[in-house]
Amino acid sequence: MSFELEPGYLEKLEDDIRNGKLEDHLEAIEDLHSADIAEIVDQLSVDAGKQLVQEIDESKAAEVLVELDEDLRAKILTEYSGVEIAHELVENLDSDDAADLINELSAEMRREVLNNIEDPAQAKDIADLLVYPENTAGALMGKELIKVNKNWKVMRCVKEMRQQAENVEHVHSIYVVDDHNILLGTLSLKKLLTTSLKTPIEEVYNSKLQSVEAVADAEDVANTMQKYDLVVMPVVDALGHLLGRITIDDVVDVIREEAKEDYNLASGLTDEVESDDNIWTITKARLPWLLIGLFGGIMAASVIGRYEVALSTLPKMAFFIPLIAAMGGNVGVQSSAIVVQALASKAIMGNMGNRLLKEIGVALVNGLICGALIIGAGLFLGYEVRLCMTVAIALLAVILVAALVGTFVPLVLDRYNVDPALATGPFITTMNDILGLFIYFSIGYALLDI
Amino acid sequence: MSFELEPGYLEKLEDDIRNGKLEDHLEAIEDLHSADIAEIVDQLSVDAGKQLVQEIDESKAAEVLVELDEDLRAKILTEYSGVEIAHELVENLDSDDAADLINELSAEMRREVLNNIEDPAQAKDIADLLVYPENTAGALMGKELIKVNKNWKVMRCVKEMRQQAENVEHVHSIYVVDDHNILLGTLSLKKLLTTSLKTPIEEVYNSKLQSVEAVADAEDVANTMQKYDLVVMPVVDALGHLLGRITIDDVVDVIREEAKEDYNLASGLTDEVESDDNIWTITKARLPWLLIGLFGGIMAASVIGRYEVALSTLPKMAFFIPLIAAMGGNVGVQSSAIVVQALASKAIMGNMGNRLLKEIGVALVNGLICGALIIGAGLFLGYEVRLCMTVAIALLAVILVAALVGTFVPLVLDRYNVDPALATGPFITTMNDILGLFIYFSIGYALLDI
Repeated sequence: MSFELEPGYLEKLEDDIRNGKLEDHLEAIEDLHSADIAEIVDQLSVDAGKQLVQEIDESKAAEVLVELDEDLRAKILTEYSGVEIAHELVENLDSDDAADLINELSAEMRREVLNNIEDPAQAKDIADLLVYPENTAGALMGKELIKVNKNWKVMRCVKEMRQQAENVEHVHSIYVVDDHNILLGTLSLKKLLTTSLKTPIEEVYNSKLQSVEAVADAEDVANTMQKYDLVVMPVVDALGHLLGRITIDDVVDVIREEAKEDYNLASGLTDEVESDDNIWTITKARLPWLLIGLFGGIMAASVIGRYEVALSTLPKMAFFIPLIAAMGGNVGVQSSAIVVQALASKAIMGNMGNRLLKEIGVALVNGLICGALIIGAGLFLGYEVRLCMTVAIALLAVILVAALVGTFVPLVLDRYNVDPALATGPFITTMNDILGLFIYFSIGYALLDI
Repeated sequence: MSFELEPGYLEKLEDDIRNGKLEDHLEAIEDLHSADIAEIVDQLSVDAGKQLVQEIDESKAAEVLVELDEDLRAKILTEYSGVEIAHELVENLDSDDAADLINELSAEMRREVLNNIEDPAQAKDIADLLVYPENTAGALMGKELIKVNKNWKVMRCVKEMRQQAENVEHVHSIYVVDDHNILLGTLSLKKLLTTSLKTPIEEVYNSKLQSVEAVADAEDVANTMQKYDLVVMPVVDALGHLLGRITIDDVVDVIREEAKEDYNLASGLTDEVESDDNIWTITKARLPWLLIGLFGGIMAASVIGRYEVALSTLPKMAFFIPLIAAMGGNVGVQSSAIVVQALASKAIMGNMGNRLLKEIGVALVNGLICGALIIGAGLFLGYEVRLCMTVAIALLAVILVAALVGTFVPLVLDRYNVDPALATGPFITTMNDILGLFIYFSIGYALLDI
């Protein structure tokens, strides 16, 4: 099933391309799937990759470019003129892929490409798609689809479909529209295959369908398609005119990217960062969170500084600073992660009071267990009773507070339309570090006189 | 596009069901998509939900049950006898959904259901599917598909397809097999629509296709389908016989679950935990990581205890314990998150030496920036020079070490076939806390004499 290269193949290919012997490999490479060729190009030096893409068959080259990473694609596209992009690449692509490719070009280049597309209908389709902002249904959709008129009979339908199919690579759904191109429903292939040729479409189409407006958010499209197990979903304008369709493969990419974004935010990384980015890109993605941590650490230092009296009376309190900080951070991240995921899946959140009560319940159970364990471990290791009590009580309090902070912060962010995933990761850890130390030393200070 | 309930609707429905007036709602509810009905059932009390599912149309009820959460489904299924499950539910489902539903029943009940399915072919299909372990291609596949023999002409093909289509709800692909049911390729609908009826299939089918063996891992299926933008993929046995097909909607669920698992592990949650689980389930998912943190905290205390001399000479060192611990944790999680994602996407990892050099480069840049900032901030806030130097040098060292630990640990885990995502979250944070404090106090101790 999976595609694997022989060891040493890439090195040999790189050498042969450098020595002008690319020809020897062309046939074998063109036989691969464009996604596999893209993987090879990605592993070659930029120069060798450029040569390879330019030498292979035009329609394959177009597909390979679509599969490539944006940065590398941009580098390879510099070798093409506007006319070449229009004639060799864009004309071999579906409208949505073509629009994605053109969208990355400079405004001037974009115009040149559009002006050089020979089929005016295709040029118009692509220009239509360029209008939609990123991360909307419109930006995800393609124009290629099969549609039939409700007034046709099955016979005419099959005939017209044969014609339309010439321009459509995969037929996922057959859309039924009225004379004004208003989307009415779908015609299943099953119905088409099992109905008499003289039946009017009107009598056999399915009027129940999920559609989405072109301005809808990509995330909503993903949620809807997943919820209703859709493979393709039609896109309409505000009046219900059929504009295009979104296929699930583009949505899978949206889902993966979103998951990656949440994961990155939880791990203290901004933006999409890949392991093969350069040092400076990776540093830029990481430094902001480290600065939050740095600032939090300085705040924590001043909190501890306020309690120097407690610390000098009971210097061993310092020993348990990492424990208090770590537990506050861990509990906070756990609580926020549960809320963030519930928000992301748009699960109906239930009663807010119940949610908080439950969170307090969980925190109490965990806090009591951890508190009891720390008293046992502390006494066993020979720490004094007063210290063990301080740590245990503080731990219980810290776990409770951190759980509430972890629950509240993402809910508040979400209400103000900030991505709640921001709340996981270093932000909540830092906040809980500071709060936790404050609680710990307050309790230590209060217990000093006992 | 999205489905929304009027406020107060659920309360009214719950009341009406309790008062025996479910009838009033039935028509409206049956008109909804099964995924929407499942959402309603999920929000009702268990008793009301049971009644609703039992009252609606059988085929709709079967679909609703498939959409429901496992726990709730199990509760509702207790109301059904084996015969009822066979006749009312299973016979209305695709083989893969039916297998999922049956799989959760007791062994005895499972046998009773299978014995009561009227169509022996369907019973055999389902029994076939029950063989495959969870998270394999076989467990994801369904048996419903359309296949044609390579020796047929297009005409016969259309005729046979009409017949097969009776039992297949969605036609995604037409598979071409030989006389021994060996999968040869696919026939595109486009070809079927645009080719003369007398052409033999052999001349028009596409022999390039991605297939997967039934024993393959679900994660590999997801990666392959995403890479090649597939909507449906055929499943074969080791000899190449066509067994079934996997559709992308089931794979989307796999992708989401995987992403959720990684996110949970990074956030210190084991297993799948939902915001609506009960207190005990949530506690069980969270406690293990808290215990790791607790243990780490106790270790940290003993590390600091070893350096009591340094601490008593320079007590303000305690102030910066949280800073050192937090930065070590943050950097470690960042580094491991990048590696974990690279491993998950099966990106070719490139040269290991280069990776480490890059990681060291990033850590050096971040460490120098953070170190310089902490010296500036520390001096500005009036801490003594020796303390600021100690903190800055320790910070640089901690960032370097944490980056290396964060990079190495997931790689090592992966080599030993342990899920590298385990390495993010509390595990690496705790490890870096301890290492970081050790470095901090060693440096502090070494600088004491200066």
